[in-house]
Amino acid sequence: MIETPYLLFLGDAPDMLAAKVAIGIRDWRPDNAVGQLRLPGCGADLGLSDMTLEEARAAGAKTLVIGVANRGGVISKEWKKVLVAALEEGFDLAAGLHNLLRNEPDLVAVAEATGRSLHDVRVPEVDYPIADGKKRRGKRCLPVGTDCSVGKMYTAIAMEREMHARNMKATFRATGQTGILITGDGVPLDAVIADFMAGSVEWLTPDNDEDHWDLIEGQGSLFHVSYSGVTMALIHGGQPDALILCHEPTRAQMRGLPDYTPPSLEELRDTALPLARIANSGCVVAGVSVNTQHMSEEDAKAYLAEIESSMDLPATDPYRFGPGKLVDALAAL
Amino acid sequence: MIETPYLLFLGDAPDMLAAKVAIGIRDWRPDNAVGQLRLPGCGADLGLSDMTLEEARAAGAKTLVIGVANRGGVISKEWKKVLVAALEEGFDLAAGLHNLLRNEPDLVAVAEATGRSLHDVRVPEVDYPIADGKKRRGKRCLPVGTDCSVGKMYTAIAMEREMHARNMKATFRATGQTGILITGDGVPLDAVIADFMAGSVEWLTPDNDEDHWDLIEGQGSLFHVSYSGVTMALIHGGQPDALILCHEPTRAQMRGLPDYTPPSLEELRDTALPLARIANSGCVVAGVSVNTQHMSEEDAKAYLAEIESSMDLPATDPYRFGPGKLVDALAAL
Repeated sequence: MIETPYLLFLGDAPDMLAAKVAIGIRDWRPDNAVGQLRLPGCGADLGLSDMTLEEARAAGAKTLVIGVANRGGVISKEWKKVLVAALEEGFDLAAGLHNLLRNEPDLVAVAEATGRSLHDVRVPEVDYPIADGKKRRGKRCLPVGTDCSVGKMYTAIAMEREMHARNMKATFRATGQTGILITGDGVPLDAVIADFMAGSVEWLTPDNDEDHWDLIEGQGSLFHVSYSGVTMALIHGGQPDALILCHEPTRAQMRGLPDYTPPSLEELRDTALPLARIANSGCVVAGVSVNTQHMSEEDAKAYLAEIESSMDLPATDPYRFGPGKLVDALAAL
Repeated sequence: MIETPYLLFLGDAPDMLAAKVAIGIRDWRPDNAVGQLRLPGCGADLGLSDMTLEEARAAGAKTLVIGVANRGGVISKEWKKVLVAALEEGFDLAAGLHNLLRNEPDLVAVAEATGRSLHDVRVPEVDYPIADGKKRRGKRCLPVGTDCSVGKMYTAIAMEREMHARNMKATFRATGQTGILITGDGVPLDAVIADFMAGSVEWLTPDNDEDHWDLIEGQGSLFHVSYSGVTMALIHGGQPDALILCHEPTRAQMRGLPDYTPPSLEELRDTALPLARIANSGCVVAGVSVNTQHMSEEDAKAYLAEIESSMDLPATDPYRFGPGKLVDALAAL
């Protein structure tokens, strides 16, 4: 659990593309984002107040979150100065970098001396149990994709916002580093030991009110041979009552696998639903989420209408047209 | 890679049930088993020569393998004396215990001083790659089960022996601690980090001669919600050309999951084969392996005949009736 709110460190990020994590925090948990801290030459700007460490502490910020990727996998001297000063100023540090904060002896030493915490969200900090498969109270929804990186996280977190706006009980449950940094909590599922994957998802989505929905962040795809085991563990550990099928229609090959083509939405449905029913016999496919960023608005609308007609399911692009139809579907279950 | 041959340490095992690993080595790799070492009160006997450490070294043994479970998860003083003496005598140590050899400071110190190795086969010793899904040369066979512990390892290693007897090229590929201790090599798949599971299976079953078969040890079950992600990674990382369906017909509930009942062989076939074809479109179900230990011989034969007729697949209990039919099926592919 990372202490909130945050000061967002953008470093010397060349552009906004490098600031994906910080943008996610600003967009999805604006209350967590007190301000931004930028180094000379930074090409990213979140539109938040630029703050010194002292100003951010005075404004209540508790953790400095590294909201950008670092170049070459090395924490530079310029970054280090800020990180050390932040610890001295009373901030915890949180990051999802490949090179871990805990592997930097100077940061470890200063954190110990100042009593602060270093959060590497790529690394599990909990001893997860082995899954027991017991039925849990409350409801759970899991987006599953025809491929990796088709919008599963966006779908879940956009549904959470819409459900809160409707005064429905809902919690986005992060399973990847970006989601964990956005919410301050979650399971870095791709770094969990094989035997404990499904158990970590059970741990993440415990008993809850009968009318509460967990919106679980998906990972990988049953059709992506590198990561399908992780997806399988989400389906069985998550015990979803509802699946959302996620798709990017213009993709010609599976991400990172040039010899593989993505399946159709029908193939995804027919593969994922029987597997989900092993853990929850009442599971249904509630809707379809399509990433239409590479289509014109007209084409996108036509595509969604075709899906709705052929699959008899509500279909939307939650980024372009909002997740309302998907939330309607959950509310009707 | 564990150096062979072995001296098998039985300690103070109360009975043969506690000596499962040692029995596996004796039965499947008799050339690896130079002799046994037993402490006073040991109730297990492999029928091998009882040897002192000195005698076993003289006979060529290179590694002392702990072939029994220890009581209460603690390595006792009596065991320690033998393990330390073995290191001093020039043996490496290998074990699949829950409490690791490497977590015993005295064993670590003596191993360092003597230049010997401590092998904890529950812990990966390789940085496995992320799976790339590329088609590999050679053929692969994977047993998949309706449940855990239905005979998948036995099926694969019995098929390897039969194939060697027929001068076919075949290699049993261990993915669990018992299999790794038996063969001296393999991947402890249930201890691998989620993102690298499928890649570790690719690493374990690399390019080979076109007429060579890898017999991959299965793990878990697609229908066992605690471990299905591991099974999924085996199916996609292993790229099997042939699946063997494994079943224990008298089991009323899934192992360790009282609320779940095992699927039928037909359900297993219909679930596993489409998933396998994502990674290898040519994959087929080659046969059925039934664990009939709780059935009379007459009932077992009738059950197998019924399966053969209803599923149009060769079916055998490889322990009771030999794996010949399954090997016939691979040879015919």
